[in-house]
Amino acid sequence: MKCELVFVGTELLLGDILNTNAQYLSKKLAALGFDVLFQCVVGDNPERLRKVLEEGLSRSDIIITTGGLGPTKDDLTKEVCASVFSLPLEMHEESLRRVRECFRAKNSPMPESNEKQALMPRGSVIFKNTNGTAPGCAMEKDGKHIIILPGPPREMSEMFENCALPYLKKFSDHVIISHSVRTFGIGESLMAEKAGELLDMQNPTVAPYAKSGEALLRVTAKAENEEEAEKLVAPVIDEIKRRFGNLVYGIDSANPEEALVALLKEKDLTLATAESCTGGLIAKRITDIPGASDVFGCGIVSYSNEIKKSLLGVREDLLEKYGAVSEAVAASMALGAVKAGKSDLAVSVTGIAGPDSDGTSKPVGLVYIAVTDGSNYRIKKLLTGHAEKSCRDYNRNVSASAALNEVRRFILESEDNQKDISAFISSF
Amino acid sequence: MKCELVFVGTELLLGDILNTNAQYLSKKLAALGFDVLFQCVVGDNPERLRKVLEEGLSRSDIIITTGGLGPTKDDLTKEVCASVFSLPLEMHEESLRRVRECFRAKNSPMPESNEKQALMPRGSVIFKNTNGTAPGCAMEKDGKHIIILPGPPREMSEMFENCALPYLKKFSDHVIISHSVRTFGIGESLMAEKAGELLDMQNPTVAPYAKSGEALLRVTAKAENEEEAEKLVAPVIDEIKRRFGNLVYGIDSANPEEALVALLKEKDLTLATAESCTGGLIAKRITDIPGASDVFGCGIVSYSNEIKKSLLGVREDLLEKYGAVSEAVAASMALGAVKAGKSDLAVSVTGIAGPDSDGTSKPVGLVYIAVTDGSNYRIKKLLTGHAEKSCRDYNRNVSASAALNEVRRFILESEDNQKDISAFISSF
Repeated sequence: MKCELVFVGTELLLGDILNTNAQYLSKKLAALGFDVLFQCVVGDNPERLRKVLEEGLSRSDIIITTGGLGPTKDDLTKEVCASVFSLPLEMHEESLRRVRECFRAKNSPMPESNEKQALMPRGSVIFKNTNGTAPGCAMEKDGKHIIILPGPPREMSEMFENCALPYLKKFSDHVIISHSVRTFGIGESLMAEKAGELLDMQNPTVAPYAKSGEALLRVTAKAENEEEAEKLVAPVIDEIKRRFGNLVYGIDSANPEEALVALLKEKDLTLATAESCTGGLIAKRITDIPGASDVFGCGIVSYSNEIKKSLLGVREDLLEKYGAVSEAVAASMALGAVKAGKSDLAVSVTGIAGPDSDGTSKPVGLVYIAVTDGSNYRIKKLLTGHAEKSCRDYNRNVSASAALNEVRRFILESEDNQKDISAFISSF
Repeated sequence: MKCELVFVGTELLLGDILNTNAQYLSKKLAALGFDVLFQCVVGDNPERLRKVLEEGLSRSDIIITTGGLGPTKDDLTKEVCASVFSLPLEMHEESLRRVRECFRAKNSPMPESNEKQALMPRGSVIFKNTNGTAPGCAMEKDGKHIIILPGPPREMSEMFENCALPYLKKFSDHVIISHSVRTFGIGESLMAEKAGELLDMQNPTVAPYAKSGEALLRVTAKAENEEEAEKLVAPVIDEIKRRFGNLVYGIDSANPEEALVALLKEKDLTLATAESCTGGLIAKRITDIPGASDVFGCGIVSYSNEIKKSLLGVREDLLEKYGAVSEAVAASMALGAVKAGKSDLAVSVTGIAGPDSDGTSKPVGLVYIAVTDGSNYRIKKLLTGHAEKSCRDYNRNVSASAALNEVRRFILESEDNQKDISAFISSF
């Protein structure tokens, strides 16, 4: 089935509100196996709305609208939709009772204009609004359907789940499911190369995406039902995991901090952080995860050199000779944090987030990350490649993600960790 | 001028991403006085994109597209737009150099496919992409314009500001400007009451909004040019500032951390942080501001009681008797931070962010904030009132904002600060 979305509301055209309904409905319809080929936003204007509806009906089987069901004379979605199908509006007594009830519940008198909300197209399937006054409905003519839903997201989504979804399921003969395999530390092009012929598959399909230093592969399958679709996807995800190994940190909505907190819990390890350029972002992201207190007790934001020395024991001569943004200082910070935090592991980050440089010849976007358990260590030099005016957020986010990822790899790839962090620091 | 927005990307039709570009661009165009009558989302499909463009050009003067400028063969926006205007594509050497540079900066080889990003429609005005590889452009034919911008919001918005906006300003005959007066610590209804008759003005208009514990008044004026509009707005903003006093912390995009960093700089003061439930968020927000290092050197995330004792000197008996979420511990943490951080001021936060309680009878959303200069202090008890499953982010954000705001008020309202924090702690 071809499906089209029409969002009605001048407030959307003015940018007063973010159209979250678009994403919500698109996702739901994709999962039902419907093709959504167009989305359109149009103001509260009957002529333009009518044109959009007629155009949509000429190329799609189902149109779903949101918005324009309010009590004011601006709200005309229902009227225009009914007129496109030449259906008269009739008072729907049950809906009228429901509108009246809503006002009674708020102890306020019902303006007469609200009666209009209970006028429904003749022969339509009425959708009850459990979160507001305006009912929705589905109307049909010559095998084409128009479904109208209210605009406020809370009202819309509940009505969609309870009423529109059962109505639409009759027309769905297959489902589509998607899973994302998330990686860190590999670019989109290199990822595509490694994925190779997987990208040419038909069902499931495999597609690469990149976002804030991460790259992911989305595996999407189409089948008669969910179980069949999952069966198609599973072996492909396994193959991706095999090819990408530890670069894969999670599936679907996972993020690096979630993956790390889960791994630390699994291995019964605690982590401390010592942050310079990320300024608390790593600690913040770890503690975004409920229950992080099991694995995280201590974070030190050593933004100044003074604090790097006093709280983390970084040697003054290292700061002077190599600067705060250096391997030597990163390692010293990590060692200081594992001691101060009385933790099993610590990670440190020192770098130049920008937009301004640190007054040396080091480039904005240069970051050192060190991980240690007090004896072994791992050091990573990162060049984010971003030094433009607005780079700061990006550089800090990518540095934090990379740091979280380095801890994960320190745990999983212990054979690659270097030995004796104290000797390493002394060598400077 | 009539303007139309076309968003290209199958990921939008599948609901994979939220279309934030729609709101951003709609807002910007409304400010220029342009009428945006339609927004359309279409997939990476040349025939359907061409239809949408032709339809749009038949009823509007300007079409702005986002998305579909990537290096893969799916990315066809530029090609289709150029062909609608019958313009051939030509290699734009400067853009090619820029694409190459981007890869060099990341130290990674450039795939050949990326060259295509530098092919531009003949005669178009090229828009440089300072955040990515794909340039945009503006092309014109018979008084109609197509502007193409990249899809990633960071790239799109910067290119819009730097390139598209100056291009579009030529066609604008009036402007609408808005300024927001931001307050913290007052609800929306109380704010509306205090604003009184200002809310009935016509030009400028004044409207109240509430968001994450903050309340703001938006002042909007329409005039022939920016200068005239600013003249209308200025006296109204002054009057609002007069009525709201210290509750006002800034104008427009200012946020509590920006306001605080500016105030600390002005007063030549340094701040340290001691965070429990906010887990680094306050430090992170302070260091979001470039140049924060002048006023911020040290943050301690004392997530565990162990670290509250060892790094901040919180007495064990206070933790045992009153629990970590208490006035006594908040005050001790702040005093510990001002010492450890060798700073002029320190702020501490301890609370229950949720979703789970701390095993005592204290409610989720209970937070204590303390500010001290080592001798005077200020303590605030906050009840966010949010304990639902998804409350964690909200509670952490509001707590961090309130903490930043308490520091601001500690500085500005020194006569209200209490005396002798050590005596206060000893009293427990």
